Amino acid sequence: MAPLYFLGFFGFIMTTIAYLGPAGTYSEMAALRYLQLSHPDLEHDSSKMCPYPTIPQAIRAAEQGQVDIAIVPIENSIQGGVTMTLDSLWQSESLQIQQAIVLPIAHALITRAAKLEDIKTVYSHPQGLAQCQQWLDHNLPTVLQIATDSTTEGLHTVAEDLTTAAIASQRAAEIYNLPILEFPINDQPDNVTRFLVLGRTATNTKGTHSSLAFSLKRNMPGALVKPLLVFADRQINLSRIESRPTKRSLGEYIFFIDVEASADTPNFHEALAELRTVTENLKILGSYEVF
Amino acid sequence: MAPLYFLGFFGFIMTTIAYLGPAGTYSEMAALRYLQLSHPDLEHDSSKMCPYPTIPQAIRAAEQGQVDIAIVPIENSIQGGVTMTLDSLWQSESLQIQQAIVLPIAHALITRAAKLEDIKTVYSHPQGLAQCQQWLDHNLPTVLQIATDSTTEGLHTVAEDLTTAAIASQRAAEIYNLPILEFPINDQPDNVTRFLVLGRTATNTKGTHSSLAFSLKRNMPGALVKPLLVFADRQINLSRIESRPTKRSLGEYIFFIDVEASADTPNFHEALAELRTVTENLKILGSYEVF
Repeated sequence: MAPLYFLGFFGFIMTTIAYLGPAGTYSEMAALRYLQLSHPDLEHDSSKMCPYPTIPQAIRAAEQGQVDIAIVPIENSIQGGVTMTLDSLWQSESLQIQQAIVLPIAHALITRAAKLEDIKTVYSHPQGLAQCQQWLDHNLPTVLQIATDSTTEGLHTVAEDLTTAAIASQRAAEIYNLPILEFPINDQPDNVTRFLVLGRTATNTKGTHSSLAFSLKRNMPGALVKPLLVFADRQINLSRIESRPTKRSLGEYIFFIDVEASADTPNFHEALAELRTVTENLKILGSYEVF
Repeated sequence: MAPLYFLGFFGFIMTTIAYLGPAGTYSEMAALRYLQLSHPDLEHDSSKMCPYPTIPQAIRAAEQGQVDIAIVPIENSIQGGVTMTLDSLWQSESLQIQQAIVLPIAHALITRAAKLEDIKTVYSHPQGLAQCQQWLDHNLPTVLQIATDSTTEGLHTVAEDLTTAAIASQRAAEIYNLPILEFPINDQPDNVTRFLVLGRTATNTKGTHSSLAFSLKRNMPGALVKPLLVFADRQINLSRIESRPTKRSLGEYIFFIDVEASADTPNFHEALAELRTVTENLKILGSYEVF
């Protein structure tokens, strides 16, 4: 089911979208892609876009109804799961995944410095720094690396200080009107991030993928074999599994599982019923399409 | 089997230990605990301790024989797996886990500022910042958070600049002779980190725990059910499972598994033989005791 819409002043269908801002982040690119996919005939209206300084704040805004949806990164092909998103999803009472969007990620070194030797400080989101670590070790081994809440947060400093640089998208360089010194600088050329569209409305039960999360009754991952067998016995494929600590004590985990199945099949309903008997706390996070 | 030793000038048994430095980090505390456990009768000799600026560098030093062992964090009860350690372990050709050490972690806010309002910048390792995120959001919502390679790296700045603070151990405050303004500031009181002692010598095959890592022949975690059944069928308990991306493409994972079994039992040998048939690449990371 589509997220909530309301008619704007000029007759546009408006969805308010929370994302990790400010403008120019990869989350914003995912949000623009979402708008393109959901309203291909409409012009974009920037008033729909609501930047938030952190991922948990963007998710909370959607949960509390300040916006219709939040678009957040969940997994990068190099750095793995985005732990803040996983932890927020587990804590959420009402949010459902409505769509997944996979975006290629190519990082640019944005700076007003004329050459690499002039750079003393590099700003980026921790994932941006981590995805360019080998490049940084090789080309800027002595610079101070400063982790920011988003890839674009450091760009104001870059605009003023010729000894600083930021790792962000080419689009960010355009928006902030800043030069790119090197591109691409990510260590792996095949760098993609999967984003989730989260909203409070009911799941698209016909989606090709479904996501679940559960903790186990017995405090050991050995008990994980039973939930996995629930799917294996029904020929339901798993496309992903990820563990997070329960934060109660070392050795207790929450498991996040993506299955290649629609939530409205009898097979899946049976699997869920059985799954409840072999898990402690089970959350259905949504059924959705992957773009 | 114990790591390599050599006799020092004064007849001490000396093991050279790489850890994430400088002095005062939690990794150093784990290294001191290791010395206490392995040589309870000997006085510590600080010349045995070799600080490295990053975890991968400490691991590489042990792998290349510049030191006897490396002591590195592998998992925190709140923040989960230490991805740098997991990725380095998978890439290592020769290192084996010789011991695991679980340390309680309590963070202090170290600063020369007289009150919280005077603090403009907070330094710590990304894990230190993450483990105090709620406290920071509540008490220092507007400060600039700077991620450093270790919890103690920012302490030199803290010594000179009264508007800065660092999140590190009480021991770090003592070593650098700096005042603690607040303690403890970690969001969860039960905060522990598990460290691994890594060396090039053969595994202690009688250890109570064994660690393995594998990738799967089929590119989907659904295939994970077979390796898990290998252990479940033999009543071998799993105490942990963690996935990391292969970095080849989204949806391909390496799985790290800890089992409660000694490597020298026929049961375990059978399990390994079967495991080879259902995995793509299998690494035995070692058998060891947990302290």
